[in-house]
Amino acid sequence: MPVPPRPPGSPLGLHRVIEPAGVLPQAAWRLDPDPAIWPDEVLVCVERLNLDAASFRQLREATGGDQDAMRAAVLTIVADRGKMQNPVTGSGGMLTGVVREAGQDSPLGLAPGDRIATLVSLSLTPLAITDGLAAWDGGSEQVPCQGHAILFGRSIAAVLPQDLPVPLSLAVMDVCGAPALTHRVVAEATARQPVAGRGPVVAVLGAAGKSGSLSAAAARRAGAGLVIGVVPTDREAATLRAARSADGTGGLADQVVIADATDPVAASEAVLEAGGPADVTVVCVDVPGCEGGAILATAQRGTVIFFSMATSFTAAALGAEGVAADITMLVGNGYSAGHAELAIDLIRTEPGVRQIFDSRIYQTRGFQGGGPLGQQGE
Amino acid sequence: MPVPPRPPGSPLGLHRVIEPAGVLPQAAWRLDPDPAIWPDEVLVCVERLNLDAASFRQLREATGGDQDAMRAAVLTIVADRGKMQNPVTGSGGMLTGVVREAGQDSPLGLAPGDRIATLVSLSLTPLAITDGLAAWDGGSEQVPCQGHAILFGRSIAAVLPQDLPVPLSLAVMDVCGAPALTHRVVAEATARQPVAGRGPVVAVLGAAGKSGSLSAAAARRAGAGLVIGVVPTDREAATLRAARSADGTGGLADQVVIADATDPVAASEAVLEAGGPADVTVVCVDVPGCEGGAILATAQRGTVIFFSMATSFTAAALGAEGVAADITMLVGNGYSAGHAELAIDLIRTEPGVRQIFDSRIYQTRGFQGGGPLGQQGE
Repeated sequence: MPVPPRPPGSPLGLHRVIEPAGVLPQAAWRLDPDPAIWPDEVLVCVERLNLDAASFRQLREATGGDQDAMRAAVLTIVADRGKMQNPVTGSGGMLTGVVREAGQDSPLGLAPGDRIATLVSLSLTPLAITDGLAAWDGGSEQVPCQGHAILFGRSIAAVLPQDLPVPLSLAVMDVCGAPALTHRVVAEATARQPVAGRGPVVAVLGAAGKSGSLSAAAARRAGAGLVIGVVPTDREAATLRAARSADGTGGLADQVVIADATDPVAASEAVLEAGGPADVTVVCVDVPGCEGGAILATAQRGTVIFFSMATSFTAAALGAEGVAADITMLVGNGYSAGHAELAIDLIRTEPGVRQIFDSRIYQTRGFQGGGPLGQQGE
Repeated sequence: MPVPPRPPGSPLGLHRVIEPAGVLPQAAWRLDPDPAIWPDEVLVCVERLNLDAASFRQLREATGGDQDAMRAAVLTIVADRGKMQNPVTGSGGMLTGVVREAGQDSPLGLAPGDRIATLVSLSLTPLAITDGLAAWDGGSEQVPCQGHAILFGRSIAAVLPQDLPVPLSLAVMDVCGAPALTHRVVAEATARQPVAGRGPVVAVLGAAGKSGSLSAAAARRAGAGLVIGVVPTDREAATLRAARSADGTGGLADQVVIADATDPVAASEAVLEAGGPADVTVVCVDVPGCEGGAILATAQRGTVIFFSMATSFTAAALGAEGVAADITMLVGNGYSAGHAELAIDLIRTEPGVRQIFDSRIYQTRGFQGGGPLGQQGE
């Protein structure tokens, strides 16, 4: 007897929530990763997970970095929850894989065989792991993995570019919301500039990192007149100074200053001395306590974009009020239309950004003595 | 021998920080409330504290609402910290008082005798209490109080209007950041509307509250075409429906809908059915878990303004990404230029808003059986 087709699922994936009932998949404790898809869903064969930085750090600290303990921790979470959402940090990450089946009503435009990255968080993506993570040594947030995952009608995914190593694409897409929103905000500030031809001052806290370097390049492309990169150490300053801009005329940042982003007076004075205050300040430093420095570094009627997941909502809200800062403060939304395309274009065309990503991916592996992922043919 | 004048203080009040050294006054554990002011400071004789809602609730729960225990709790905090910053919630409130002395370099434009409200948080305002809070019964967040407080060069204060009861002015100024930012965002959305004469749709979650009613009125004034008020109960719906708009043609909100703002599906569907999605969604509900509903209620390229101190930064950031919502999310900054003036003007000219404030102030006192503060001549 033929099985009647399933009714259309909720584009938000509400039909995958097991408990508690009625919440969105991200807020759920447990999802149903059944590989039998609903008409608007997509089934993906997983190849690699990219754990988000906060989650990876927490797991490493909780397990002491032991390979078997790291594997067991991830496997237990996924078995218990039907998704890879670290219960301590609440965060997830993303994944790459190959489309196995696309439901007839899926609006995502994917076809079987497409190699994709998911651009929604693992914290809401139904997931099952079948290989016991045998190929992961626990030393990198990029986790080779076999299993399957489900995309909903309202999920987001991008086909991976053929000309870039998969680990590089994954690392770029993981932070692609940052350059996209930076580009939009700086372009708006450029359009508002009273003096034509003098672009806005943009300060990027954490400019030698992945989201920071992409944001600096995006700011330049959107018309920034001066890009100030703030970094914590001499070593990061050297990395950033060595990163060339696409036109070859200078560095990714016009000014590179060394300051502790969590010291509000030091960080803001560094930006002021380098040509600030900033019309737009972009916070890409993944440690708590950067709100005050960002606020003080920003001009009245300027904008702060907080991309760090370590941002405190109340510290930002009360901090700005406390110093009479009439500034716009944005929660760094990880999604905007065209975000993956912009970030991939930047990594292709900006040698300085590529340089930083290559060294960062190498650095993470270096924690366990491994080589750069991009050269392992994974 | 004449005492040499003190050098100029830091406009941020850094010279008042006792511990830990180097942080901003708000992040400090302890401030120095010495009444000898620096040249850019102002000394205020305190008349009344307004504890913020989260702090008052925490104190009441921790003490069971006992009058002596409430007094002791506040006195201990102020004695220990040199400011009224609740160590559990991190939040403060504001105060009213009379200027006793304005330093010669103070930029605030205040003179001795001015009756003012501070518009920076108590969490960063040096404070000493001298009357043991003898006139406070512990039943209201408005605390009659004798003592002194210090304003820095970069603080904000407003002279209290003569035509309004002090408790009312205090309650209005406590939330005046919300209508100001709502007005700015809705006015920008109005200017962007492709069809002239059709203003943006604005949804206010918690529209029957203090910041919510002011924000609804501000949205209307800024050109909103449709104001949807979302409230949790029949009782609040009746309150909001009874609140007339200034022109007498209708209510403060065009549509009043009852929904649980913490239930994302219910809240967003309620807004959709009332004429949404919203171009601008304003979150004034002071409980956790309202991020998802606000995000889903908002149109693509729309804006959510989070005013609730219970907002979770990560829930907002990951929640929007998780449902592919290309929306702007703003941290509700408590300060913008002209914010107190706008709010006072709204309370004067909008009878519906005044009605809600009067009933809210009454309601709080009602907890201990007292009458409305505004009628007690305090």
